Amino acid sequence: MKDKRPLILVTNDDGITAPGIRTLIDVMNTLGDVCVVAPDSPQSGMGHAITVNDTLFVDKVVVDKDAPQVEYSCSGTPADCVKLAVNEILKRKPDLCVSGINHGSNSSINVIYSGTMSAAVEAGTQGIPSIGFSLLDYSLEANFDPVRKYVKQIAMQALENGTPEGVVLNVNFPKLPENELKGIKVCRQANAHWVENFDKRVNPLGRDYYWLTGEFVNEDQGEDTDEWALDNGYVSVVPVQFDLTAHHAIKDINSWDLK
Amino acid sequence: MKDKRPLILVTNDDGITAPGIRTLIDVMNTLGDVCVVAPDSPQSGMGHAITVNDTLFVDKVVVDKDAPQVEYSCSGTPADCVKLAVNEILKRKPDLCVSGINHGSNSSINVIYSGTMSAAVEAGTQGIPSIGFSLLDYSLEANFDPVRKYVKQIAMQALENGTPEGVVLNVNFPKLPENELKGIKVCRQANAHWVENFDKRVNPLGRDYYWLTGEFVNEDQGEDTDEWALDNGYVSVVPVQFDLTAHHAIKDINSWDLK
Repeated sequence: MKDKRPLILVTNDDGITAPGIRTLIDVMNTLGDVCVVAPDSPQSGMGHAITVNDTLFVDKVVVDKDAPQVEYSCSGTPADCVKLAVNEILKRKPDLCVSGINHGSNSSINVIYSGTMSAAVEAGTQGIPSIGFSLLDYSLEANFDPVRKYVKQIAMQALENGTPEGVVLNVNFPKLPENELKGIKVCRQANAHWVENFDKRVNPLGRDYYWLTGEFVNEDQGEDTDEWALDNGYVSVVPVQFDLTAHHAIKDINSWDLK
Repeated sequence: MKDKRPLILVTNDDGITAPGIRTLIDVMNTLGDVCVVAPDSPQSGMGHAITVNDTLFVDKVVVDKDAPQVEYSCSGTPADCVKLAVNEILKRKPDLCVSGINHGSNSSINVIYSGTMSAAVEAGTQGIPSIGFSLLDYSLEANFDPVRKYVKQIAMQALENGTPEGVVLNVNFPKLPENELKGIKVCRQANAHWVENFDKRVNPLGRDYYWLTGEFVNEDQGEDTDEWALDNGYVSVVPVQFDLTAHHAIKDINSWDLK
Protein backbone atom coordinates (compact mmCIF):
# COMPACT_ATOMS: atom_id res chain seq x y z
CA MET A 1 0.00 0.00 0.00
CA LYS A 2 2.79 2.39 0.91
CA ASP A 3 4.67 1.80 -2.34
CA LYS A 4 1.93 2.76 -4.74
CA ARG A 5 -1.01 5.11 -4.84
CA PRO A 6 -4.13 3.33 -3.69
CA LEU A 7 -6.93 2.68 -6.17
CA ILE A 8 -10.20 4.09 -4.85
CA LEU A 9 -13.65 3.25 -6.21
CA VAL A 10 -16.24 5.98 -5.66
CA THR A 11 -19.99 5.49 -6.00
CA ASN A 12 -23.26 6.75 -4.51
CA ASP A 13 -27.03 6.46 -4.75
CA ASP A 14 -28.00 10.06 -5.52
CA GLY A 15 -26.58 9.77 -9.04
CA ILE A 16 -23.27 10.70 -10.63
CA THR A 17 -24.01 14.43 -10.87
CA ALA A 18 -25.08 14.93 -7.23
CA PRO A 19 -23.04 17.47 -5.23
CA GLY A 20 -22.25 14.93 -2.49
CA ILE A 21 -20.30 12.60 -4.76
CA ARG A 22 -18.36 15.57 -6.16
CA THR A 23 -17.05 16.39 -2.67
CA LEU A 24 -16.19 12.75 -2.09
CA ILE A 25 -14.29 12.50 -5.39
CA ASP A 26 -12.44 15.71 -4.60
CA VAL A 27 -11.24 14.40 -1.22
CA MET A 28 -10.35 10.95 -2.63
CA ASN A 29 -8.19 12.56 -5.33
CA THR A 30 -5.89 13.70 -2.49
CA LEU A 31 -5.48 10.07 -1.36
CA GLY A 32 -5.18 7.96 -4.49
CA ASP A 33 -6.20 7.16 -8.05
CA VAL A 34 -9.93 7.51 -8.34
CA CYS A 35 -12.42 5.64 -10.51
CA VAL A 36 -16.07 6.66 -10.30
CA VAL A 37 -18.83 4.22 -11.24
CA ALA A 38 -22.17 5.68 -10.19
CA PRO A 39 -25.84 5.52 -11.15
CA ASP A 40 -26.99 7.74 -14.01
CA SER A 41 -30.04 8.79 -11.95
CA PRO A 42 -31.07 8.99 -8.28
CA GLN A 43 -31.53 5.59 -6.57
CA SER A 44 -32.57 6.61 -3.06
CA GLY A 45 -34.35 3.95 -1.05
CA MET A 46 -33.12 1.21 -3.36
CA GLY A 47 -31.77 -0.89 -0.50
CA HIS A 48 -29.58 -3.70 -1.73
CA ALA A 49 -31.40 -4.00 -5.05
CA ILE A 50 -29.58 -5.58 -7.98
CA THR A 51 -30.69 -5.72 -11.60
CA VAL A 52 -31.46 -9.34 -12.47
CA ASN A 53 -34.26 -8.97 -15.00
CA ASP A 54 -33.00 -6.08 -17.09
CA THR A 55 -29.98 -4.97 -19.07
CA LEU A 56 -27.25 -2.68 -17.73
CA PHE A 57 -25.70 0.15 -19.71
CA VAL A 58 -22.41 1.78 -18.78
CA ASP A 59 -21.02 4.98 -20.33
CA LYS A 60 -17.65 6.60 -19.84
CA VAL A 61 -18.44 10.22 -19.04
CA VAL A 62 -16.62 13.47 -18.28
CA VAL A 63 -18.35 15.45 -15.57
CA ASP A 64 -15.42 17.69 -14.64
CA LYS A 65 -12.94 18.00 -17.50
CA ASP A 66 -10.10 19.35 -15.34
CA ALA A 67 -10.25 16.59 -12.72
CA PRO A 68 -8.00 13.50 -12.79
CA GLN A 69 -10.56 10.75 -12.09
CA VAL A 70 -12.06 8.39 -14.65
CA GLU A 71 -15.87 8.26 -14.51
CA TYR A 72 -18.55 5.83 -15.62
CA SER A 73 -22.27 6.36 -15.47
CA CYS A 74 -24.38 3.20 -15.07
CA SER A 75 -28.08 2.49 -15.63
CA GLY A 76 -28.25 0.19 -12.59
CA THR A 77 -28.44 0.37 -8.82
CA PRO A 78 -25.56 1.25 -6.45
CA ALA A 79 -24.89 -2.47 -5.86
CA ASP A 80 -24.82 -3.02 -9.65
CA CYS A 81 -22.27 -0.19 -9.97
CA VAL A 82 -19.91 -1.90 -7.54
CA LYS A 83 -20.32 -5.30 -9.20
CA LEU A 84 -19.65 -3.79 -12.63
CA ALA A 85 -16.69 -1.75 -11.40
CA VAL A 86 -14.97 -4.65 -9.66
CA ASN A 87 -15.66 -7.30 -12.29
CA GLU A 88 -15.66 -5.39 -15.59
CA ILE A 89 -14.22 -1.90 -15.38
CA LEU A 90 -11.29 -1.90 -12.95
CA LYS A 91 -8.07 -3.68 -13.87
CA ARG A 92 -7.41 -4.67 -10.25
CA LYS A 93 -9.31 -4.92 -6.98
CA PRO A 94 -9.63 -1.45 -5.46
CA ASP A 95 -7.92 -0.73 -2.13
CA LEU A 96 -10.96 1.16 -0.90
CA CYS A 97 -14.57 1.73 -1.91
CA VAL A 98 -16.36 4.86 -0.73
CA SER A 99 -20.02 5.62 -1.30
CA GLY A 100 -21.81 8.97 -0.93
CA ILE A 101 -21.72 11.54 0.38
CA ASN A 102 -25.43 10.85 0.65
CA HIS A 103 -27.87 13.73 0.82
CA GLY A 104 -29.76 12.61 3.93
CA SER A 105 -29.31 10.32 6.91
CA ASN A 106 -28.44 6.64 6.80
CA SER A 107 -28.15 6.28 10.56
CA SER A 108 -29.91 3.66 12.65
CA ILE A 109 -32.54 1.54 10.87
CA ASN A 110 -32.13 3.67 7.72
CA VAL A 111 -29.11 1.51 6.94
CA ILE A 112 -31.41 -1.25 5.67
CA TYR A 113 -33.11 1.04 3.11
CA SER A 114 -29.93 2.74 2.02
CA GLY A 115 -28.57 2.52 -1.50
CA THR A 116 -25.44 4.31 -0.27
CA MET A 117 -24.75 1.59 2.26
CA SER A 118 -25.74 -1.21 -0.13
CA ALA A 119 -22.85 -0.17 -2.38
CA ALA A 120 -20.48 -0.23 0.59
CA VAL A 121 -21.81 -3.61 1.73
CA GLU A 122 -21.51 -5.02 -1.81
CA ALA A 123 -17.84 -4.02 -1.91
CA GLY A 124 -17.43 -5.48 1.58
CA THR A 125 -18.75 -8.87 0.43
CA GLN A 126 -15.99 -8.82 -2.18
CA GLY A 127 -13.33 -8.22 0.49
CA ILE A 128 -12.79 -4.52 -0.22
CA PRO A 129 -12.45 -2.07 2.73
CA SER A 130 -15.48 0.08 2.33
CA ILE A 131 -17.22 3.15 3.78
CA GLY A 132 -20.58 4.82 3.24
CA PHE A 133 -20.80 8.55 4.03
CA SER A 134 -24.02 10.49 4.61
CA LEU A 135 -24.84 14.06 5.64
CA LEU A 136 -28.05 14.80 7.56
CA ASP A 137 -29.20 17.32 4.97
CA TYR A 138 -31.48 16.33 2.08
CA SER A 139 -31.02 19.63 0.26
CA LEU A 140 -29.32 19.66 -3.12
CA GLU A 141 -27.60 22.85 -1.84
CA ALA A 142 -26.25 21.05 1.24
CA ASN A 143 -22.84 22.31 2.37
CA PHE A 144 -20.35 19.43 2.39
CA ASP A 145 -17.29 21.53 3.25
CA PRO A 146 -17.47 21.05 7.04
CA VAL A 147 -17.15 17.27 6.71
CA ARG A 148 -14.21 17.09 4.28
CA LYS A 149 -11.54 16.66 6.92
CA TYR A 150 -13.46 13.83 8.57
CA VAL A 151 -14.03 12.05 5.27
CA LYS A 152 -10.30 12.24 4.59
CA GLN A 153 -9.31 11.10 8.07
CA ILE A 154 -11.62 8.08 8.12
CA ALA A 155 -10.69 7.04 4.56
CA MET A 156 -6.96 7.35 5.37
CA GLN A 157 -7.37 5.21 8.45
CA ALA A 158 -9.27 2.56 6.48
CA LEU A 159 -6.50 2.52 3.87
CA GLU A 160 -3.84 2.29 6.55
CA ASN A 161 -5.44 -0.24 8.90
CA GLY A 162 -7.78 -2.09 6.57
CA THR A 163 -11.21 -2.90 7.98
CA PRO A 164 -12.12 -5.97 10.05
CA GLU A 165 -13.22 -8.91 7.90
CA GLY A 166 -16.92 -8.84 7.10
CA VAL A 167 -17.29 -5.24 8.31
CA VAL A 168 -17.93 -1.97 6.48
CA LEU A 169 -18.34 1.48 7.98
CA ASN A 170 -21.51 3.57 8.08
CA VAL A 171 -20.51 7.20 8.65
CA ASN A 172 -23.08 9.93 9.25
CA PHE A 173 -22.48 13.65 9.69
CA PRO A 174 -24.75 16.04 11.57
CA LYS A 175 -25.73 19.19 9.69
CA LEU A 176 -23.49 21.64 11.52
CA PRO A 177 -20.89 24.27 10.72
CA GLU A 178 -17.30 22.99 11.02
CA ASN A 179 -16.58 24.69 14.33
CA GLU A 180 -19.57 23.00 15.96
CA LEU A 181 -18.59 19.47 14.95
CA LYS A 182 -17.22 17.83 18.10
CA GLY A 183 -15.30 14.93 16.57
CA ILE A 184 -15.89 11.26 15.81
CA LYS A 185 -17.71 8.63 17.87
CA VAL A 186 -17.67 4.91 17.06
CA CYS A 187 -21.22 3.77 17.83
CA ARG A 188 -23.80 1.04 17.63
CA GLN A 189 -26.91 1.36 15.47
CA ALA A 190 -29.75 2.87 17.51
CA ASN A 191 -32.83 0.69 17.96
CA ALA A 192 -35.32 2.86 16.06
CA HIS A 193 -38.00 2.40 13.43
CA TRP A 194 -40.35 4.23 11.08
CA VAL A 195 -44.06 4.68 11.61
CA GLU A 196 -45.56 5.15 8.18
CA ASN A 197 -48.22 7.65 7.37
CA PHE A 198 -49.35 7.19 3.79
CA ASP A 199 -50.61 10.28 2.02
CA LYS A 200 -53.64 9.04 0.06
CA ARG A 201 -54.67 11.01 -3.04
CA VAL A 202 -56.87 10.59 -6.11
CA ASN A 203 -55.35 10.81 -9.58
CA PRO A 204 -57.03 12.68 -12.50
CA LEU A 205 -58.64 9.41 -13.61
CA GLY A 206 -60.28 8.93 -10.21
CA ARG A 207 -57.95 6.20 -9.00
CA ASP A 208 -56.56 6.23 -5.45
CA TYR A 209 -52.83 6.34 -5.01
CA TYR A 210 -50.38 6.77 -2.12
CA TRP A 211 -47.20 8.62 -1.28
CA LEU A 212 -45.01 7.00 1.34
CA THR A 213 -44.30 9.34 4.23
CA GLY A 214 -43.38 8.48 7.77
CA GLU A 215 -42.13 9.48 11.15
CA PHE A 216 -38.83 8.30 12.56
CA VAL A 217 -39.24 6.94 16.07
CA ASN A 218 -36.15 6.43 18.25
CA GLU A 219 -36.92 4.86 21.60
CA ASP A 220 -33.30 3.94 22.26
CA GLN A 221 -31.99 5.98 25.21
CA GLY A 222 -28.43 4.67 24.92
CA GLU A 223 -25.58 7.18 24.73
CA ASP A 224 -23.53 4.74 22.67
CA THR A 225 -25.80 4.96 19.62
CA ASP A 226 -25.41 6.77 16.30
CA GLU A 227 -28.56 8.80 16.97
CA TRP A 228 -27.17 10.06 20.27
CA ALA A 229 -23.85 10.97 18.66
CA LEU A 230 -25.52 12.87 15.82
CA ASP A 231 -27.93 14.68 18.17
CA ASN A 232 -24.93 15.75 20.23
CA GLY A 233 -22.77 17.14 17.45
CA TYR A 234 -20.57 14.12 16.75
CA VAL A 235 -19.77 12.31 13.53
CA SER A 236 -21.10 8.74 13.97
CA VAL A 237 -19.18 5.71 12.72
CA VAL A 238 -21.03 2.38 12.96
CA PRO A 239 -19.22 -0.82 11.97
CA VAL A 240 -21.82 -2.74 9.94
CA GLN A 241 -21.77 -6.47 9.20
CA PHE A 242 -23.43 -8.52 6.49
CA ASP A 243 -23.52 -11.73 8.47
CA LEU A 244 -27.10 -11.09 9.53
CA THR A 245 -27.28 -14.19 11.77
CA ALA A 246 -28.77 -13.40 15.17
CA HIS A 247 -26.33 -15.80 16.83
CA HIS A 248 -27.86 -15.15 20.26
CA ALA A 249 -31.26 -16.36 19.00
CA ILE A 250 -30.15 -19.77 17.73
CA LYS A 251 -30.60 -21.36 21.16
CA ASP A 252 -34.08 -19.84 21.49
CA ILE A 253 -35.28 -21.16 18.15
CA ASN A 254 -33.72 -24.54 18.89
CA SER A 255 -36.05 -24.80 21.88
CA TRP A 256 -39.07 -24.69 19.54
CA ASP A 257 -40.96 -27.85 18.69
CA LEU A 258 -39.42 -28.37 15.25
CA LYS A 259 -38.93 -31.76 13.60
CA MET B 1 -53.65 -15.63 20.79
CA LYS B 2 -55.48 -18.78 21.85
CA ASP B 3 -58.83 -17.00 22.12
CA LYS B 4 -59.04 -15.72 18.58
CA ARG B 5 -57.90 -16.72 15.14
CA PRO B 6 -54.57 -15.08 14.39
CA LEU B 7 -54.36 -12.46 11.65
CA ILE B 8 -51.69 -13.43 9.12
CA LEU B 9 -50.21 -11.09 6.51
CA VAL B 10 -48.87 -12.86 3.42
CA THR B 11 -46.57 -11.27 0.86
CA ASN B 12 -43.74 -12.21 -1.50
CA ASP B 13 -41.40 -10.83 -4.15
CA ASP B 14 -42.30 -13.01 -7.14
CA GLY B 15 -45.65 -11.24 -7.51
CA ILE B 16 -49.17 -12.01 -6.35
CA THR B 17 -49.87 -14.65 -9.02
CA ALA B 18 -46.70 -16.73 -8.45
CA PRO B 19 -47.30 -20.40 -7.50
CA GLY B 20 -45.16 -20.06 -4.35
CA ILE B 21 -47.43 -17.51 -2.69
CA ARG B 22 -50.47 -19.63 -3.54
CA THR B 23 -49.05 -22.53 -1.52
CA LEU B 24 -48.19 -20.19 1.35
CA ILE B 25 -51.72 -18.72 1.39
CA ASP B 26 -53.21 -22.17 1.32
CA VAL B 27 -51.23 -23.30 4.36
CA MET B 28 -51.87 -20.05 6.27
CA ASN B 29 -55.63 -20.44 5.75
CA THR B 30 -55.37 -23.50 8.01
CA LEU B 31 -53.86 -21.35 10.78
CA GLY B 32 -55.71 -18.04 10.78
CA ASP B 33 -57.38 -15.20 8.91
CA VAL B 34 -55.28 -14.32 5.92
CA CYS B 35 -54.72 -10.98 4.20
CA VAL B 36 -52.49 -10.92 1.13
CA VAL B 37 -50.72 -7.72 0.07
CA ALA B 38 -48.20 -8.55 -2.63
CA PRO B 39 -46.48 -6.92 -5.59
CA ASP B 40 -48.38 -6.82 -8.87
CA SER B 41 -45.24 -7.95 -10.72
CA PRO B 42 -42.00 -9.83 -9.96
CA GLN B 43 -39.56 -7.94 -7.70
CA SER B 44 -36.67 -10.37 -7.47
CA GLY B 45 -33.36 -8.90 -6.40
CA MET B 46 -35.06 -5.78 -5.04
CA GLY B 47 -33.29 -6.04 -1.69
CA HIS B 48 -34.84 -3.71 0.87
CA ALA B 49 -35.98 -1.17 -1.73
CA ILE B 50 -38.81 1.19 -0.86
CA THR B 51 -40.64 3.57 -3.17
CA VAL B 52 -39.79 7.12 -2.13
CA ASN B 53 -39.89 8.97 -5.44
CA ASP B 54 -42.97 7.46 -7.03
CA THR B 55 -46.63 6.84 -6.35
CA LEU B 56 -48.04 3.56 -5.06
CA PHE B 57 -51.23 1.96 -6.36
CA VAL B 58 -53.15 -0.74 -4.49
CA ASP B 59 -56.02 -2.80 -5.91
CA LYS B 60 -58.27 -5.28 -4.17
CA VAL B 61 -58.17 -8.37 -6.34
CA VAL B 62 -59.67 -11.84 -6.48
CA VAL B 63 -57.16 -14.44 -7.59
CA ASP B 64 -58.99 -17.51 -6.31
CA LYS B 65 -62.73 -16.89 -5.97
CA ASP B 66 -63.36 -19.89 -3.71
CA ALA B 67 -60.64 -19.07 -1.17
CA PRO B 68 -61.32 -17.19 2.08
CA GLN B 69 -58.44 -14.69 2.06
CA VAL B 70 -58.65 -11.01 1.14
CA GLU B 71 -56.06 -9.96 -1.45
CA TYR B 72 -54.47 -6.70 -2.53
CA SER B 73 -52.11 -6.20 -5.42
CA CYS B 74 -49.60 -3.34 -5.02
CA SER B 75 -47.41 -1.48 -7.53
CA GLY B 76 -44.52 -1.25 -5.06
CA THR B 77 -41.75 -3.40 -3.64
CA PRO B 78 -42.15 -6.16 -1.02
CA ALA B 79 -41.16 -3.70 1.75
CA ASP B 80 -43.77 -1.22 0.42
CA CYS B 81 -46.41 -3.97 0.57
CA VAL B 82 -45.73 -4.59 4.25
CA LYS B 83 -45.74 -0.87 5.08
CA LEU B 84 -49.04 -0.38 3.24
CA ALA B 85 -50.61 -3.47 4.78
CA VAL B 86 -49.69 -2.56 8.35
CA ASN B 87 -50.41 1.14 8.13
CA GLU B 88 -53.30 1.42 5.66
CA ILE B 89 -55.00 -1.86 4.87
CA LEU B 90 -55.17 -3.94 8.04
CA LYS B 91 -57.41 -2.91 10.90
CA ARG B 92 -54.99 -4.27 13.49
CA LYS B 93 -51.36 -5.34 13.72
CA PRO B 94 -51.00 -8.85 12.27
CA ASP B 95 -49.91 -11.68 14.56
CA LEU B 96 -47.59 -13.04 11.91
CA CYS B 97 -46.13 -11.97 8.58
CA VAL B 98 -44.97 -14.61 6.12
CA SER B 99 -43.23 -13.93 2.83
CA GLY B 100 -42.71 -16.30 -0.10
CA ILE B 101 -42.54 -19.08 -0.87
CA ASN B 102 -39.77 -17.67 -3.02
CA HIS B 103 -38.85 -19.41 -6.25
CA GLY B 104 -35.10 -19.70 -5.62
CA SER B 105 -32.63 -19.64 -2.75
CA ASN B 106 -32.29 -16.87 -0.17
CA SER B 107 -29.70 -18.70 1.87
CA SER B 108 -26.35 -17.30 2.97
CA ILE B 109 -25.35 -13.92 1.46
CA ASN B 110 -28.44 -14.01 -0.80
CA VAL B 111 -30.37 -12.69 2.20
CA ILE B 112 -29.05 -9.17 1.50
CA TYR B 113 -30.40 -9.14 -2.08
CA SER B 114 -33.69 -10.75 -1.22
CA GLY B 115 -37.03 -9.04 -1.67
CA THR B 116 -38.66 -11.98 0.13
CA MET B 117 -36.55 -11.38 3.21
CA SER B 118 -36.86 -7.59 2.98
CA ALA B 119 -40.61 -7.97 3.49
CA ALA B 120 -40.01 -10.18 6.52
CA VAL B 121 -37.43 -7.74 7.91
CA GLU B 122 -39.76 -4.78 7.33
CA ALA B 123 -42.47 -6.51 9.37
CA GLY B 124 -39.85 -7.35 11.99
CA THR B 125 -38.90 -3.68 12.39
CA GLN B 126 -42.56 -3.06 13.19
CA GLY B 127 -42.53 -5.68 15.94
CA ILE B 128 -44.37 -8.39 13.99
CA PRO B 129 -43.15 -12.03 14.20
CA SER B 130 -42.06 -12.72 10.70
CA ILE B 131 -40.73 -15.47 8.42
CA GLY B 132 -39.40 -15.60 4.86
CA PHE B 133 -39.69 -18.94 3.05
CA SER B 134 -37.73 -19.94 -0.07
CA LEU B 135 -37.43 -23.11 -2.14
CA LEU B 136 -34.20 -23.87 -3.98
CA ASP B 137 -36.01 -24.16 -7.32
CA TYR B 138 -36.31 -21.20 -9.68
CA SER B 139 -38.80 -22.95 -11.94
CA LEU B 140 -42.33 -21.61 -12.24
CA GLU B 141 -43.37 -25.27 -12.19
CA ALA B 142 -41.57 -25.89 -8.88
CA ASN B 143 -43.30 -28.43 -6.63
CA PHE B 144 -44.11 -26.82 -3.28
CA ASP B 145 -46.04 -29.79 -1.86
CA PRO B 146 -43.09 -31.42 -0.06
CA VAL B 147 -42.51 -28.31 2.08
CA ARG B 148 -46.10 -27.65 3.20
CA LYS B 149 -45.81 -29.46 6.52
CA TYR B 150 -42.62 -27.59 7.41
CA VAL B 151 -44.14 -24.22 6.53
CA LYS B 152 -47.09 -25.01 8.77
CA GLN B 153 -44.93 -26.28 11.63
CA ILE B 154 -42.59 -23.27 11.64
CA ALA B 155 -45.44 -20.75 11.31
CA MET B 156 -47.35 -22.44 14.15
CA GLN B 157 -44.31 -22.31 16.39
CA ALA B 158 -43.78 -18.63 15.61
CA LEU B 159 -47.42 -17.92 16.46
CA GLU B 160 -47.15 -19.91 19.65
CA ASN B 161 -43.76 -18.73 20.93
CA GLY B 162 -43.42 -15.36 19.24
CA THR B 163 -39.98 -14.56 17.84
CA PRO B 164 -37.08 -13.02 19.78
CA GLU B 165 -37.11 -9.20 19.62
CA GLY B 166 -35.32 -7.83 16.60
CA VAL B 167 -35.18 -11.24 14.92
CA VAL B 168 -36.96 -12.67 11.87
CA LEU B 169 -36.55 -16.13 10.35
CA ASN B 170 -35.00 -16.99 7.01
CA VAL B 171 -36.22 -20.46 6.02
CA ASN B 172 -34.88 -22.26 2.94
CA PHE B 173 -35.95 -25.62 1.54
CA PRO B 174 -33.79 -27.94 -0.54
CA LYS B 175 -35.36 -29.14 -3.78
CA LEU B 176 -36.15 -32.70 -2.72
CA PRO B 177 -39.11 -35.05 -2.63
CA GLU B 178 -40.85 -35.15 0.76
CA ASN B 179 -39.42 -38.52 1.80
CA GLU B 180 -35.86 -37.26 1.30
CA LEU B 181 -36.27 -34.16 3.48
CA LYS B 182 -34.45 -34.93 6.74
CA GLY B 183 -36.01 -32.31 9.00
CA ILE B 184 -35.19 -28.82 10.25
CA LYS B 185 -31.82 -27.36 11.27
CA VAL B 186 -31.43 -23.98 12.97
CA CYS B 187 -28.27 -22.53 11.40
CA ARG B 188 -26.02 -19.56 10.96
CA GLN B 189 -25.66 -17.79 7.61
CA ALA B 190 -22.76 -19.34 5.66
CA ASN B 191 -19.87 -17.02 4.83
CA ALA B 192 -20.21 -17.05 1.05
CA HIS B 193 -20.23 -14.54 -1.78
CA TRP B 194 -20.89 -14.07 -5.48
CA VAL B 195 -18.23 -13.72 -8.15
CA GLU B 196 -19.83 -11.82 -10.98
CA ASN B 197 -19.38 -12.64 -14.59
CA PHE B 198 -21.08 -10.02 -16.74
CA ASP B 199 -22.36 -11.18 -20.09
CA LYS B 200 -21.47 -8.32 -22.46
CA ARG B 201 -23.54 -7.93 -25.64
CA VAL B 202 -24.22 -5.35 -28.33
CA ASN B 203 -27.73 -4.05 -28.90
CA PRO B 204 -29.24 -3.50 -32.39
CA LEU B 205 -28.11 0.16 -32.28
CA GLY B 206 -24.49 -0.90 -31.68
CA ARG B 207 -24.39 0.00 -28.01
CA ASP B 208 -22.76 -2.31 -25.44
CA TYR B 209 -24.88 -3.64 -22.63
CA TYR B 210 -24.53 -6.22 -19.86
CA TRP B 211 -26.48 -8.98 -18.20
CA LEU B 212 -25.56 -9.71 -14.61
CA THR B 213 -24.59 -13.34 -14.11
CA GLY B 214 -22.43 -14.82 -11.42
CA GLU B 215 -21.10 -17.79 -9.59
CA PHE B 216 -21.91 -18.51 -5.96
CA VAL B 217 -18.76 -19.25 -3.96
CA ASN B 218 -19.08 -20.87 -0.53
CA GLU B 219 -15.75 -21.23 1.24
CA ASP B 220 -17.36 -21.81 4.63
CA GLN B 221 -16.65 -25.39 5.75
CA GLY B 222 -18.82 -25.15 8.87
CA GLU B 223 -21.45 -27.82 9.48
CA ASP B 224 -23.59 -25.31 11.37
CA THR B 225 -24.37 -23.21 8.27
CA ASP B 226 -27.48 -22.95 6.11
CA GLU B 227 -25.52 -24.08 3.05
CA TRP B 228 -24.41 -27.24 4.82
CA ALA B 229 -27.94 -28.00 5.98
CA LEU B 230 -29.40 -27.50 2.49
CA ASP B 231 -26.66 -29.57 0.84
CA ASN B 232 -27.39 -32.37 3.30
CA GLY B 233 -31.15 -32.53 2.85
CA TYR B 234 -32.26 -30.36 5.77
CA VAL B 235 -34.60 -27.36 5.90
CA SER B 236 -32.46 -24.41 7.09
CA VAL B 237 -33.77 -21.84 9.56
CA VAL B 238 -31.51 -18.83 10.15
CA PRO B 239 -32.52 -16.23 12.74
CA VAL B 240 -31.78 -12.90 11.04
CA GLN B 241 -31.33 -9.56 12.78
CA PHE B 242 -31.64 -5.99 11.52
CA ASP B 243 -29.31 -4.50 14.07
CA LEU B 244 -26.40 -4.62 11.63
CA THR B 245 -23.86 -3.33 14.17
CA ALA B 246 -20.68 -5.40 14.16
CA HIS B 247 -20.41 -5.06 17.95
CA HIS B 248 -17.14 -7.02 18.02
CA ALA B 249 -15.52 -4.46 15.69
CA ILE B 250 -16.23 -1.35 17.77
CA LYS B 251 -13.06 -1.85 19.82
CA ASP B 252 -10.99 -2.30 16.64
CA ILE B 253 -12.25 0.90 15.04
CA ASN B 254 -11.81 2.76 18.33
CA SER B 255 -8.10 1.96 18.11
CA TRP B 256 -7.83 3.97 14.86
CA ASP B 257 -6.38 7.46 14.86
CA LEU B 258 -9.72 9.31 14.72
CA LYS B 259 -10.28 12.76 16.20
